[in-house]
Amino acid sequence: MNDFTFFNPTRIEFGVDKEQRIGQHLAEHGIKKVLLCYGSERIKREGLFAVVSQRLSENGIEWVELGGIVSNPVISKVREGIALAKQHQVDAILSVGGGSVLDSAKAIAAGVCYAGDVWDLFVGKASVDSALPLFAILTLAATGSEMNPGAVVTNEDTRQKFFISSPALFPKVSIVNPALMRSVSRDYLVYSASDVIAHLIEVYFTAAVHPKLQSRLVESLICTVIETTEALLENPNDDDARAQFAWAATLALNGLTSSGTAGFSFPNHAIEHSLSALFNVPHGAGLSVVMPAWMKWFQKRNPEPFKRFAGEVFGVITAADGIAALEKWFNKIGTPTRLSQLGIQESDLPTIVDNVQGNVRIFGIAEVYTPEAVSAILKNAL
Amino acid sequence: MNDFTFFNPTRIEFGVDKEQRIGQHLAEHGIKKVLLCYGSERIKREGLFAVVSQRLSENGIEWVELGGIVSNPVISKVREGIALAKQHQVDAILSVGGGSVLDSAKAIAAGVCYAGDVWDLFVGKASVDSALPLFAILTLAATGSEMNPGAVVTNEDTRQKFFISSPALFPKVSIVNPALMRSVSRDYLVYSASDVIAHLIEVYFTAAVHPKLQSRLVESLICTVIETTEALLENPNDDDARAQFAWAATLALNGLTSSGTAGFSFPNHAIEHSLSALFNVPHGAGLSVVMPAWMKWFQKRNPEPFKRFAGEVFGVITAADGIAALEKWFNKIGTPTRLSQLGIQESDLPTIVDNVQGNVRIFGIAEVYTPEAVSAILKNAL
Repeated sequence: MNDFTFFNPTRIEFGVDKEQRIGQHLAEHGIKKVLLCYGSERIKREGLFAVVSQRLSENGIEWVELGGIVSNPVISKVREGIALAKQHQVDAILSVGGGSVLDSAKAIAAGVCYAGDVWDLFVGKASVDSALPLFAILTLAATGSEMNPGAVVTNEDTRQKFFISSPALFPKVSIVNPALMRSVSRDYLVYSASDVIAHLIEVYFTAAVHPKLQSRLVESLICTVIETTEALLENPNDDDARAQFAWAATLALNGLTSSGTAGFSFPNHAIEHSLSALFNVPHGAGLSVVMPAWMKWFQKRNPEPFKRFAGEVFGVITAADGIAALEKWFNKIGTPTRLSQLGIQESDLPTIVDNVQGNVRIFGIAEVYTPEAVSAILKNAL
Repeated sequence: MNDFTFFNPTRIEFGVDKEQRIGQHLAEHGIKKVLLCYGSERIKREGLFAVVSQRLSENGIEWVELGGIVSNPVISKVREGIALAKQHQVDAILSVGGGSVLDSAKAIAAGVCYAGDVWDLFVGKASVDSALPLFAILTLAATGSEMNPGAVVTNEDTRQKFFISSPALFPKVSIVNPALMRSVSRDYLVYSASDVIAHLIEVYFTAAVHPKLQSRLVESLICTVIETTEALLENPNDDDARAQFAWAATLALNGLTSSGTAGFSFPNHAIEHSLSALFNVPHGAGLSVVMPAWMKWFQKRNPEPFKRFAGEVFGVITAADGIAALEKWFNKIGTPTRLSQLGIQESDLPTIVDNVQGNVRIFGIAEVYTPEAVSAILKNAL
């Protein structure tokens, strides 16, 4: 077991009607005016916006709206948010939406406190030293952003999907009410399952040190994601399954499962970020394509966790059978496993491989993930 | 899955030599003078005290010593600490020791900020609204106090072992260096294993709502405790086993495993606290006596988790076999399972039963744990 620091000061308010107290949470932190970030008009149609605005008003909190944040959120929108936040001198950012809205909110929170252009923070020209306080109401469980200090945003000009991370970006309070996720589409449910599993397997498979305790926690979470996804596909009104899915998604990337591990990396994310940046595919859909392809390529480099995964998660013997079982499960739930399902052709590979090189440098794994290696991985997904 | 709040702002600094940075951690929090709490002279003999005092000096931090805190810590010592802290106007409490030292430190931190007698906070006459900031260097992994807001102290006059809990009592920073635990005796290792398992099974067995995700996390932790205890009994220098044991102990009572559960209680602790209060038995030793006795009495009231426990932890079929397997394992590692091993006779039962009534009131379970019920449970341990 390796040395580590575990620090996660986010307060999770989990359950029915928890969004009704958003005004109090903001007031308790002394907030007077927020930038209210959201994505589609769905939150207005479904009444959540009305609830939030009412609770803000009741607590004497003003707000400025930034709607229209898209999946695979883009840096131009973040810049728009920073300008709005500065113009109206808000003292906090409130995200109402899924991971894309929250990641944009985080980038805005950091960008407001940085004198230069916010993209500098993503390319390592400057570090995120401070940020406006962040609050979140989650409407999609997948990215874990509600309880972690990271954010991923795409620069649509440079076609780079990069990340920032800083203790300043832990949300103060994140409200996770599974009932607000009932209207998530079938597609986004299965993409979310893929995303959560990706968060869990990156460290599990790549770590040079992965204590058995941590392996067990990961397996517990993966089995929960598999079971609850199947339950929700059968019955979208299974609130208990939705709740366990959501809590598993939060725990999958809040620092718990990587504590005490060492020598890990995020190759699946590094590769997938290029698919999203270049072809705007949903992150989870890209990941379910990349994961089996990467696993087939990587398994011999760290055989022990692959063997363990096969047995503990799918009850099969060999590493190859474990990988096949995961791919089969992705096919079963209907998240893609082939590049062609994303509309990507073999002729696109050189462009992807080239784009991935920027990501693997950012992730610090360029030595292993050479163009040849990435090409070999992607060919497994043709 | 039930609604819940998860909030745990303690920073865990886990690993080799982490205590070397204690001065910086205190300085970063603006601390100028601490009450340095510890138990036996062992930390002086083994050099830890010298390290801590040097690091404090280097960071310009003064200290006042409060040594001699005993297992099953007593309220008179807490009062002594409060007086010292007030006299020297310390601005934080630093605990160097195990759970007893840390729980005393927490009670002192709360007592300094309370105008009346500190015991009022334990009997519900007043609530813990504020406390001096707390810092800990852990030398024994068992109670989980390093990452939770609770503390248990015995009033030696009234023979009551009661608890306090408040968000103000989360340590700011807890240093968990497994190497500092190498000198823990064989006895205290197995008592600690019993204590951690007790923390894990209370909610697991008593909850009316216990989501499968949470059950899996508990089972992962119990299996880890069992394996690492056996590894450490075989080889006390197995640093990796000691590290996983310590991290499991922290996770067992930091709010993770009870999130989303409902309708649970702490009957084993309520009963054991009387054994400690009356006979000064080690907490973990008392718990390994109480647990199998209580399980035999309770299993029919909530059969499902008992059946699950049998299969998932011990690979046996029936609830009764699962309970027998745990008792057998306690016997194997050498922590007691009979009252007689604690020097307690059948003739002592009425006194214990009477004392337990105070605890079950505090724990809010007096209706179920009548004198007759407690007597029946204890008779299972004769």
